[in-house]
Amino acid sequence: MKDLSDYLRSIPDFPKPGIIFRDVTSILQNADGFKLAIDSLLQKLEGVEFDVIAGAESRGFIFSAPLAYKLNKPLALIRKKGKLPCETVSASYALEYGFAEIEMHKDSISKGQKVILIDDLLATGGTLEASAKLIEMLGGHVEKILTLIELLGLHGREKLKKYNVESVLSFEGK
Amino acid sequence: MKDLSDYLRSIPDFPKPGIIFRDVTSILQNADGFKLAIDSLLQKLEGVEFDVIAGAESRGFIFSAPLAYKLNKPLALIRKKGKLPCETVSASYALEYGFAEIEMHKDSISKGQKVILIDDLLATGGTLEASAKLIEMLGGHVEKILTLIELLGLHGREKLKKYNVESVLSFEGK
Repeated sequence: MKDLSDYLRSIPDFPKPGIIFRDVTSILQNADGFKLAIDSLLQKLEGVEFDVIAGAESRGFIFSAPLAYKLNKPLALIRKKGKLPCETVSASYALEYGFAEIEMHKDSISKGQKVILIDDLLATGGTLEASAKLIEMLGGHVEKILTLIELLGLHGREKLKKYNVESVLSFEGK
Repeated sequence: MKDLSDYLRSIPDFPKPGIIFRDVTSILQNADGFKLAIDSLLQKLEGVEFDVIAGAESRGFIFSAPLAYKLNKPLALIRKKGKLPCETVSASYALEYGFAEIEMHKDSISKGQKVILIDDLLATGGTLEASAKLIEMLGGHVEKILTLIELLGLHGREKLKKYNVESVLSFEGK
């Protein structure tokens, strides 16, 4: 039986020298790979009690939506600034040059709800840290942060120390 | 029993006067609403033979990913320019001001494959027309274009005349 990592294509020196890009599209493009990815995430949620799945734009949507559907939970979107039409809370995080701002609808999470935060990749942890902050601004509790892939060399976990962080696949390096 | 439209929030005069914004996040934010949305799309695919689900960034991912998972099919991504790391084909379409470019990985669809193209919304049809063109550039056959919502007043179907287009909910107006 194939392992999830067998479906993952790695691209050296993309987007720049020294970076190995982990291309999740190669997993999605294979029906068995995609099923295995979602089922592996589901396994990490077995026995976990929670109320809402939250997914970050845009690759986070690909993994959070099937989980929400399968587990019959609501899906709360974390989107780039300006995309959500109703009242929002927003947070910003540093990029290599400048910063980015993300938002959630104020009514996407209620006070006291337990939230699972999903993304494809834990890299530097900047997006996930800002996402967790949004959930907390709405009174939610981040029950777990779950990603498909983790790049250990970027030490994203250090930014997320106060959370329960899990990933399905992890790689040394950046 | 509630109808899918009962879960859909409509926001008048957003993003500008005269437009009624149909906010799919209100469907997602309700577990029953999201389940009903995906199950309604699944129903439209009953008895349809196909090989691949294709979804357009980024709200299209929310609906295409659960369908691909549930039906055990590969998911091919249609993304904004510059996001996909391997060899791509690209197509552009007109926006109100200027134009936008979208891409697919060359290996995301093989020649002769039957493809279901999914998006949340059929508005003017520009994105879907360009997406269908990408699928055809890769030798795929667009078996069906399926959206959750259709805005009849924008006549998007006219751009997509040569395809089999279906939507779950349709609204008069823009």
